[in-house]
Amino acid sequence: MTVELVGEGSGDDAVVRKRIVVVGGGFAGAYAAQALERRLGKRDDVEILLFCRENYTVFQPMLPEVISGTIGLTDVVTPLRRLLRRTHVHVREVESIDLQNKTVSVAAGFSAHTHVERFDHLIIAPGTVTDFRGLTGLPEHALPFKNLADALELRSRVIRALEEADVESDHPELRRQLLTFVVAGGGFSGVEVVAELNDFVRRVAKLYRRIDPRELRVVLVHAQDRILPEMKPKLGAFAQKILRRRGVELMLGYRLHAATGASALLSGPDGVVSVPTRTLVSTIPASPHPLIDSLALPKTRNGRLLVDGTMRIQGREDLWALGDCASVPTRDGTPCPPTAQHATRQAQLVADNIARVLGRGGGGGAVPLQTFNFQGLGKMGSLGRRNAVAEIFGISISGFLAWFLWRTIYLAKMPGWGRRLKVATSWTLDLLLQPELVELRLGSSGGAIHEHFEPGQRVFSEGELGDRVYILLSGRAEVVRRRTNDAAVAGDGEQVLAVLGPGECFGEMALLDSAPRNATIRCLEPMTVLSIPKREFGLLAANVPGLRASFEQVTARRLSQGLLQ
Amino acid sequence: MTVELVGEGSGDDAVVRKRIVVVGGGFAGAYAAQALERRLGKRDDVEILLFCRENYTVFQPMLPEVISGTIGLTDVVTPLRRLLRRTHVHVREVESIDLQNKTVSVAAGFSAHTHVERFDHLIIAPGTVTDFRGLTGLPEHALPFKNLADALELRSRVIRALEEADVESDHPELRRQLLTFVVAGGGFSGVEVVAELNDFVRRVAKLYRRIDPRELRVVLVHAQDRILPEMKPKLGAFAQKILRRRGVELMLGYRLHAATGASALLSGPDGVVSVPTRTLVSTIPASPHPLIDSLALPKTRNGRLLVDGTMRIQGREDLWALGDCASVPTRDGTPCPPTAQHATRQAQLVADNIARVLGRGGGGGAVPLQTFNFQGLGKMGSLGRRNAVAEIFGISISGFLAWFLWRTIYLAKMPGWGRRLKVATSWTLDLLLQPELVELRLGSSGGAIHEHFEPGQRVFSEGELGDRVYILLSGRAEVVRRRTNDAAVAGDGEQVLAVLGPGECFGEMALLDSAPRNATIRCLEPMTVLSIPKREFGLLAANVPGLRASFEQVTARRLSQGLLQ
Repeated sequence: MTVELVGEGSGDDAVVRKRIVVVGGGFAGAYAAQALERRLGKRDDVEILLFCRENYTVFQPMLPEVISGTIGLTDVVTPLRRLLRRTHVHVREVESIDLQNKTVSVAAGFSAHTHVERFDHLIIAPGTVTDFRGLTGLPEHALPFKNLADALELRSRVIRALEEADVESDHPELRRQLLTFVVAGGGFSGVEVVAELNDFVRRVAKLYRRIDPRELRVVLVHAQDRILPEMKPKLGAFAQKILRRRGVELMLGYRLHAATGASALLSGPDGVVSVPTRTLVSTIPASPHPLIDSLALPKTRNGRLLVDGTMRIQGREDLWALGDCASVPTRDGTPCPPTAQHATRQAQLVADNIARVLGRGGGGGAVPLQTFNFQGLGKMGSLGRRNAVAEIFGISISGFLAWFLWRTIYLAKMPGWGRRLKVATSWTLDLLLQPELVELRLGSSGGAIHEHFEPGQRVFSEGELGDRVYILLSGRAEVVRRRTNDAAVAGDGEQVLAVLGPGECFGEMALLDSAPRNATIRCLEPMTVLSIPKREFGLLAANVPGLRASFEQVTARRLSQGLLQ
Repeated sequence: MTVELVGEGSGDDAVVRKRIVVVGGGFAGAYAAQALERRLGKRDDVEILLFCRENYTVFQPMLPEVISGTIGLTDVVTPLRRLLRRTHVHVREVESIDLQNKTVSVAAGFSAHTHVERFDHLIIAPGTVTDFRGLTGLPEHALPFKNLADALELRSRVIRALEEADVESDHPELRRQLLTFVVAGGGFSGVEVVAELNDFVRRVAKLYRRIDPRELRVVLVHAQDRILPEMKPKLGAFAQKILRRRGVELMLGYRLHAATGASALLSGPDGVVSVPTRTLVSTIPASPHPLIDSLALPKTRNGRLLVDGTMRIQGREDLWALGDCASVPTRDGTPCPPTAQHATRQAQLVADNIARVLGRGGGGGAVPLQTFNFQGLGKMGSLGRRNAVAEIFGISISGFLAWFLWRTIYLAKMPGWGRRLKVATSWTLDLLLQPELVELRLGSSGGAIHEHFEPGQRVFSEGELGDRVYILLSGRAEVVRRRTNDAAVAGDGEQVLAVLGPGECFGEMALLDSAPRNATIRCLEPMTVLSIPKREFGLLAANVPGLRASFEQVTARRLSQGLLQ
């Protein structure tokens, strides 16, 4: 494999620069790089590199506003290159970290080569991801809500669901799925998302002539008995009251445990409840970025990197970690909560400490470093439409005043006055204008995907158009056909033709013949299928001899058995 | 196949309403529906349906501003539901029109059923598409510039190219491809796109530490000897001067005739020139929407529907056509040009004529209809940054005044005062702020795609990471390997191992083994391949027995022949 050790310098080999590599471009990483620039940016013997998957940093507190389009779709994010003028910003994902050789390996871009970059100091701040692994059907069907793409995708799905419901006036079951919106997780993130989503859906649904507002259902699912567990019970109760008044249905004591393309399965006090929905967002569970998993470094039980109060990883003088992926001790010994206010202050401190180390010629050991000492100023959560809850310096505030504080404080915290001006303008215009309703189609993947089904659910029905081919990976399904009129039999009017198990394919005949489905496929045991779109299957079947032959065999066998789909 | 004849009414079967169906939601279709609402919207015996692929109408003249993000990404479009309060808007594509039975068939949505809708009057206005059929490599590698998704895709590709060029400092050839941007077509659309693209790229490139502005190349390709053939020569010459001064390279007398993923092939006075580029936009050629092809109705040579001055299709009392897909005669006998000002006026007229027909009890024949009679007010084209050209009532204007007129007139023409306010605000803020630089990843297709290669071009090189598998569909390629040091041979240091032809696959070994490419694949004759991403191939290979077996056979054969990739 060609691996390139890329030199960052201007070709001047005489000076070997101290190189600080930052992994992650969220609040923690971006602000750490910015703070380093301020302290070390003018030194010729130091260079700063930052790696981030996206070319922007997301201003998380305002991300839910993208759903309604209250502020410009790109105004919740700040391009990293605007924040960082002296840092080499690489919009590439870090694939692995070699702690022994002090290098990071970076994913390939347009040229199919891995880049390997050395470091003298490494700041690890890739944050957390919403981790659906091991949760049945969630990786396939639930949307996380972490970055701009997630927010745009959710917005598009909501508008798409309304458009479809408006057309499908004759399918009550499909309409119920389309007009129900489920958010899982009653922390700050889930509450802000459900509040914004609810406001948006109810405002724009009025424009759809065949949607009755009473058909809309917006559900917040939370495992505990009250939402916003981070706040005082009084504020949680206030938030619940406001959300309920606005039409949000709270399912407290329920936990999202599985999903299909048409439902969310919640386990609660009375067993499992299935909520029909085609729009399921889950803000939980959050786990440290997968990159952290692979590092042989001390971690907490939930996988966060253990650092000391100076933000250094124990036993290493060149490794630092901060933000949501790290467990940073506060003065009283408890770990910092994963909030922006802590991350930005950690960023200042880590930059300061690295500057101290480098200031003394890179020696390290004997340099007195600063220790993290910040208790948090308070907590705030928006409830949408001029309402919020806040706890500031221990004082509880709710309602309009909290909302006003929320807006003012976050506006002031946004990076760059240009963006602040844009957001303030958008907020002003929003008082006058109707919400945006443009559906941005984000080119949903044209490739093969996994789908999950629960018992009783249909993959497709007799008579429908054949638009996908399926391969059953796990679970079981039955092939069912309606009895023809001349069949002199009683019963439910249908006939089970076959039972399918892992490794079997179905649905291919409708594609080969461009005919409608001749049978229904219904799930018997929870099953996962590989679902291949018509176009994709056509391309492959036309060109891969083995694939075509394989499906032709299946088809011939089924025809001989009188089984048609 | 279950085909549903969906009733639109409220269930009151007694009244059979006259039903007007509009196909297309561009200027022509949307304004026709709006004009119909004004004339007939309150009548109980008439209903209006509109079918459109997107839920918005695009304000074409401002679409290029999406590239730079000067105005909000969704402000160039207007949601159809805001324009049309009494029309049933169906965001669905019309698949076919049955002229005999007077129905349209509509594509399936979430429920896999085709909808069939009857009509009494049909207004055909799906517009034109950029038609790359039959142009080698263009369907695979060139971007059209017709709708919002195209504009967003172009914007993302430009930012992506800059990000990649900033990282790939050691690959001069790749950098040349990444930093060259080619626009084909020197009409209004192409000129506005290249002007905006050029301004944007040159402004934001300053933020990239390792991009030298002199590396940037923005090219406009035009087959004739001057751009803007629609305008007076003087204005075309002015536009050329302005574009050149701003750094746009004009390739006049050249025609885009083929493309690969890394180059645009232009045929010109001295034969074929290859311009290395990864960003190729083509605004030509425009053809009527494919739906028109299938209609057995009188058409012009270039496929537009022939209508009379009343906008009716000859010989049919129930079919009307307007906008860019129709050839509408003007008073002097020449057909209307395909502009917004003509389309909106045709829309008024068609609505008026249908209202006249329906006003007399639907009789038709004897009703006096109005005839189209509009000569056009003028033409305008923006050249970006406070410059434009305009011809208004025969007077030529260029420079700042033309630009000011352009903005004022188009702002006034935007539908809805809310959107006007937003755009005016954005323009004001743009005077103060830096251009937006956020890369929206539009989930590029994860599925199999076609790619085109020209002789000498490499599909991949020895030593690279294997991220795709290929099936050769047409053309030929050679498998080449670098000679090892111990080989006592002269020559160019490489060895041809095999020649591949249609039906053969390559690149699969790197995926099966997760090893780097062991050979280079170089195109010998122009070739098209099916290119399957690693993830996709893995999913399929793991689950489709025939596919896996087929590739294993190839691998075994190649190993036995000492051919490795």
